[in-house]
Amino acid sequence: MIEKTLLSEFQRVLGRENVFHEEADRLSYSYDAAVLDQVLPALALRPLSSEALGQAIRLCNENSLPLTVRGAGTNLSGGTIPNEGGVVILTTALNRIVEINEGDLYAIVQPGVVTAKFAAEVEAKGLFYPPDPGSQAVSTIGGNVAENAGGLRGLRYGVTRDYVMGLEFFDSNGELVKAGARTVKCVTGYNLGGLLVGSEGTLGVFNRIILKLIPMPAAKKAMMAIFDDVPKASETVAAIIANRIVPVTLEFMDNFTIRAVEDFSHVGLPTDAAALLLIEVDGHPVQVADDALRVEELCRRMGAMEVRVAETAQERDKVWEARRAALSALSRIRPTTVLEDATVPRSKIPEMIAGIEGIARKFDLKIGTFGHAGDGNLHPTILTDRRNAEEWARVEHAIDSIFEKALELGGTLSGEHGIGTAKSRFLEKEVGRGTIAYSRRIKAALDPKNILNPGKIIGG
Amino acid sequence: MIEKTLLSEFQRVLGRENVFHEEADRLSYSYDAAVLDQVLPALALRPLSSEALGQAIRLCNENSLPLTVRGAGTNLSGGTIPNEGGVVILTTALNRIVEINEGDLYAIVQPGVVTAKFAAEVEAKGLFYPPDPGSQAVSTIGGNVAENAGGLRGLRYGVTRDYVMGLEFFDSNGELVKAGARTVKCVTGYNLGGLLVGSEGTLGVFNRIILKLIPMPAAKKAMMAIFDDVPKASETVAAIIANRIVPVTLEFMDNFTIRAVEDFSHVGLPTDAAALLLIEVDGHPVQVADDALRVEELCRRMGAMEVRVAETAQERDKVWEARRAALSALSRIRPTTVLEDATVPRSKIPEMIAGIEGIARKFDLKIGTFGHAGDGNLHPTILTDRRNAEEWARVEHAIDSIFEKALELGGTLSGEHGIGTAKSRFLEKEVGRGTIAYSRRIKAALDPKNILNPGKIIGG
Repeated sequence: MIEKTLLSEFQRVLGRENVFHEEADRLSYSYDAAVLDQVLPALALRPLSSEALGQAIRLCNENSLPLTVRGAGTNLSGGTIPNEGGVVILTTALNRIVEINEGDLYAIVQPGVVTAKFAAEVEAKGLFYPPDPGSQAVSTIGGNVAENAGGLRGLRYGVTRDYVMGLEFFDSNGELVKAGARTVKCVTGYNLGGLLVGSEGTLGVFNRIILKLIPMPAAKKAMMAIFDDVPKASETVAAIIANRIVPVTLEFMDNFTIRAVEDFSHVGLPTDAAALLLIEVDGHPVQVADDALRVEELCRRMGAMEVRVAETAQERDKVWEARRAALSALSRIRPTTVLEDATVPRSKIPEMIAGIEGIARKFDLKIGTFGHAGDGNLHPTILTDRRNAEEWARVEHAIDSIFEKALELGGTLSGEHGIGTAKSRFLEKEVGRGTIAYSRRIKAALDPKNILNPGKIIGG
Repeated sequence: MIEKTLLSEFQRVLGRENVFHEEADRLSYSYDAAVLDQVLPALALRPLSSEALGQAIRLCNENSLPLTVRGAGTNLSGGTIPNEGGVVILTTALNRIVEINEGDLYAIVQPGVVTAKFAAEVEAKGLFYPPDPGSQAVSTIGGNVAENAGGLRGLRYGVTRDYVMGLEFFDSNGELVKAGARTVKCVTGYNLGGLLVGSEGTLGVFNRIILKLIPMPAAKKAMMAIFDDVPKASETVAAIIANRIVPVTLEFMDNFTIRAVEDFSHVGLPTDAAALLLIEVDGHPVQVADDALRVEELCRRMGAMEVRVAETAQERDKVWEARRAALSALSRIRPTTVLEDATVPRSKIPEMIAGIEGIARKFDLKIGTFGHAGDGNLHPTILTDRRNAEEWARVEHAIDSIFEKALELGGTLSGEHGIGTAKSRFLEKEVGRGTIAYSRRIKAALDPKNILNPGKIIGG
């Protein structure tokens, strides 16, 4: 529990109505979207200004209180789960789009701005902010930057990291640090923005974020390729890239996922297909027409039974609605949904999918596989019930095996969901002891009292 | 001087023929391309393998010897100037392209690979590595990553940072650290690659670099727009971007530079023009034709006297040859050439150019201005003679004023040349004390004996 004098101090700094310490409030911030145990924080704070945010951090540091910043809490690796007796800082009220600069193609936002809302405001000006994590409807830009969120467009447009031009953040003592600039080119000092992206709230607390924008492509075209055989579909992914076409989006869905989605959203998916590829190309209208034709031909040549090209914007939206429904659809089937995130070089997608199928058989589990096949980032999704101890043990073995397989294929532990606490114990195996030691030295130097989201990524 | 036993130790580890301690050798590595005093190292080392590199670093650390890694020494901010009595590590023999993976669109290289050679090998496979710093013919990938080098294509394609997918480096104790992966999406641990890019050799020594590749655009078109008035040219830059066209390259050249280049390379530049814009667009052939037409019309509408579109590849090459000759041409005019690098949001280019003209008048100096106007990264180039103390004092005032102007316009100290020792003293003014303190904490934690290129960026 927080001492009374400290509580009053927080209330003085933030305003009484922005300090939450009732059990109901504390419960609301005790979990995120990862399958992990809840942890009750002692307090939740909602700063209304940069000043209040900085002061709140300083108070936490002075009192050695662990703090976890929370945007929408959509984190899939436990990054937003607080520490016992710690503080949750809510960015809800720090949700202003400070500037969208059309001439210089950048925007400045506070961390609590909702991703989809920001993308829509940018689009209204004919510009484009490409990162589109699955949770974009509610996720915040601050959370996206802290996690280096990916999404469906990573293949062509990269991930959140590729759009962070500058960052202003508070260090563990509430001191303001500035990194980057309003210009694409900036080598003034260390690339601290680069370090902070994906650091899961362990090295600083964002105050403002400068994001790069690009012109909106003039045209786009989506299609669905239907396969009666998984290897044919997965080999088509590699064939498209090998033909020097980089679609915006190149998604895979297995039969199990197709059926779950169709059952959930009735968009007319072919439920007897072994696998689907959902593909979108964009750019100049003539290029889009050319690329779409080439992709369509390639799919057929690789053995697609059918290729359905979306002829209208509505048909196009339907394709992506179906894809975006995948996780919700799968999670209805069993009480617990474990969404994995191992990533491999894209040419290894066929082997990875075969590997996952083998793992599902070996541990007798239901695994629906879908995801961003074009950038090698699949989401094998294990449907289970955590209360069943025997089955849960098999799930844990399966997760280990999925990770082993990804590493064996030259891949990585997490493509876009982060390490958090969920994958922390696997980290050393991939990056080696020297990397962990190097990372811990950074953390210890920048946060000597270990108050910034302690335990995430590098444990300890 | 290095003790004899330590010298033998280096010789044992690296082979006698890879340890250089004659004065002539030491002199060769005492400077780089910045206008700064030479500093004689005690020793230069040329490791032939990763193992030898790691061992050399360990020996330096054990003996508290400062070490500076040197690629081609084309650094413009003193980043490659060693420390008194320190060691220079040459990457000359670590110059292997380990892999170019066409299916997965990445390459793995050792740090000593020459940029242009790498770009050519990649191009031979129909792929594209866009970063093209001015020194690319001799510069190394390791140096490019250490400086986060930019180039002419930054506007559309970004800078070196945007192509570093992974890094393997030695820490100050010769321990191997791994960051990133062979996949575009990777959030496994801290983004140490992001931190190391642009860290000027102060946080680690690169062993292997994983670079992202993209398909080569199918077509490109270059043109030269000729203006009788500088503001018309600079306002055209902003107008092109505001019209949602992002050329690959959008370069500016003032009359002084035009005349210097023409005198040097006789490519037929209009020596009576007040300013030139050199523009290239790329992509799908139809898009290129469209964009080129729109840019041409826009230039005319903004007041260009003439727009010459390159009709053949040879004509196109001539345009870029002229641009690439700018620095060499200018540096023939006076004994000392100071190439500045302040960068502003691109809409501020007209004000920045006017500011530079005012500064040249005020301090009665010759300043030729050219550079990457499209991304706001101009290179005002001061032609002077460092041996003339009175004039040099004016040069130093002019440099200060250029920097003040850039900051006033919301810009930054260095777009692509780095801070090194040349701009270290200006850093705090831009980023603030909190940022310097944060950066120094990182440096002290990762390099406790301060052996990795000490004094660069954050001084000390």
